[in-house]
Amino acid sequence: MSFAERLTACAARIGARLGAAVTGDDPVHHAMRHAVSGGKRLRGFLVMEGARLNGLDDADAVTAAAAIEALHAYSLVHDDLPAMDDDDLRRGQPTVHVKWDDATAILAGDALQTLAFELLSRADCHPDPAVRVALVAGLARAAGAQGMVLGQARDIAAEAARAPLDLAAITDLQAGKTGALIEWSGGAGATLAGADPAPLTAYARALGLAFQIADDLLDVEGDAAATGKAVGKDAAAGKATFVSLLGVDGARARAGALVAQACDALAPYGSRAEILRDCARFVIDRKA
Amino acid sequence: MSFAERLTACAARIGARLGAAVTGDDPVHHAMRHAVSGGKRLRGFLVMEGARLNGLDDADAVTAAAAIEALHAYSLVHDDLPAMDDDDLRRGQPTVHVKWDDATAILAGDALQTLAFELLSRADCHPDPAVRVALVAGLARAAGAQGMVLGQARDIAAEAARAPLDLAAITDLQAGKTGALIEWSGGAGATLAGADPAPLTAYARALGLAFQIADDLLDVEGDAAATGKAVGKDAAAGKATFVSLLGVDGARARAGALVAQACDALAPYGSRAEILRDCARFVIDRKA
Repeated sequence: MSFAERLTACAARIGARLGAAVTGDDPVHHAMRHAVSGGKRLRGFLVMEGARLNGLDDADAVTAAAAIEALHAYSLVHDDLPAMDDDDLRRGQPTVHVKWDDATAILAGDALQTLAFELLSRADCHPDPAVRVALVAGLARAAGAQGMVLGQARDIAAEAARAPLDLAAITDLQAGKTGALIEWSGGAGATLAGADPAPLTAYARALGLAFQIADDLLDVEGDAAATGKAVGKDAAAGKATFVSLLGVDGARARAGALVAQACDALAPYGSRAEILRDCARFVIDRKA
Repeated sequence: MSFAERLTACAARIGARLGAAVTGDDPVHHAMRHAVSGGKRLRGFLVMEGARLNGLDDADAVTAAAAIEALHAYSLVHDDLPAMDDDDLRRGQPTVHVKWDDATAILAGDALQTLAFELLSRADCHPDPAVRVALVAGLARAAGAQGMVLGQARDIAAEAARAPLDLAAITDLQAGKTGALIEWSGGAGATLAGADPAPLTAYARALGLAFQIADDLLDVEGDAAATGKAVGKDAAAGKATFVSLLGVDGARARAGALVAQACDALAPYGSRAEILRDCARFVIDRKA
């Protein structure tokens, strides 16, 4: 199976799991389903592929994969709000606050975060409560005020202050804003299997930074039709990015070096990790 | 020790635990600390008193008590946002979005929810991972789109539609909006102790509804200086409440019956539960 086939297969399973998890017919339920539909489901794929590499079936990993996608979706719904990044378009669709309203978007995001922890705490996530609680603890550390939320808060503050950050500050910010969830996703499959998560965590750490640099490149070079979201926003906002600090060629070279580093971290898995190596190459070559 | 002394002692311990849990010097951290300061900490008290009745020391219950207070604080910060209830005053202090801004309030609330699950997943919450994960699962069910968030969404929808609800719909709505967290708090202490949570859960279910009826009465009869928040908002919004549906006397009688029901549920604990009985009476007699 190629990386593209595997990514598609994982996305379909995760979508079905999320569909079963979000029940109800209130507007907030419809908004939650809208928020978790579409997308590459890269984080969930990392969970499932890490689990497969350590001997688990997809059914053993899909609940944890759905959890991280629910958490990621919550962060997007809140980031898109007018008070935050103010985006109307996400994955080619109107954002939740545009299709419903701000209150529904706040509540749907809130409930998606709760859902992530609910899914991880369920017996069908893993039979051993100690494994489930370790996943909860790790995700909470990654998502909270020392991780993703802190990165997002600093990103907004830097933009509001119109005080562009330097490379060290941006690297630190992105390690929280996008890196922490990707890193958790990398290690979660091994944790589910009772294996050492260190190699896959190291892979995912490099992958996450490469992913963000590629995102900055897409904001400069991409087009809205392909990415399904607005482009050119960073430059218009006078925001420092990896591209504004390193230049297009420098950013591309840095992303390439990180992909090589990510692939090297997979050495313990030998040729069996080829799909993850392809994933790393895809992350910096993607057009969306 | 009287109920009032016990409530004060629990609040102090919970405040210290939360203070230790929210570190950092970014605006989002200051906003989180602001949001968890003050308040009666009734939910955390229920956790600690339920634990004490089942033989645990306060130190064994304070982390779970801090978790529910973090979750409750998140819900208040988001409810107070302009897109939701639009409140400027909370516990006699400016709300988070007034003191900082909407983005910081959204993020601080988000991180407080995460913190609740992080605290429950920590080894210092309980040595047994199975107990910790049961608390996570229960809190997630209580807080999510089938519990608190659903109640809040329906409350806002009813107000926006200017279509007052009937008594059954309001009772159902409040069971989610405020009841679910109070019910979880009632049972959590027994769960920590490995005891049957049923009597304390039944107590807390009746208490939660009495609490909400008392809140509606305060909105009619209270004053802003004593309650530390705006009053008269429900009537101004043409909102159906227990008071608009039952009248002041009817609502007061219903709250009294619920307090009697709550006290009856404590029978297995005999006279040792006198503090919780006083708590139930306090809930409907309070002026704030």
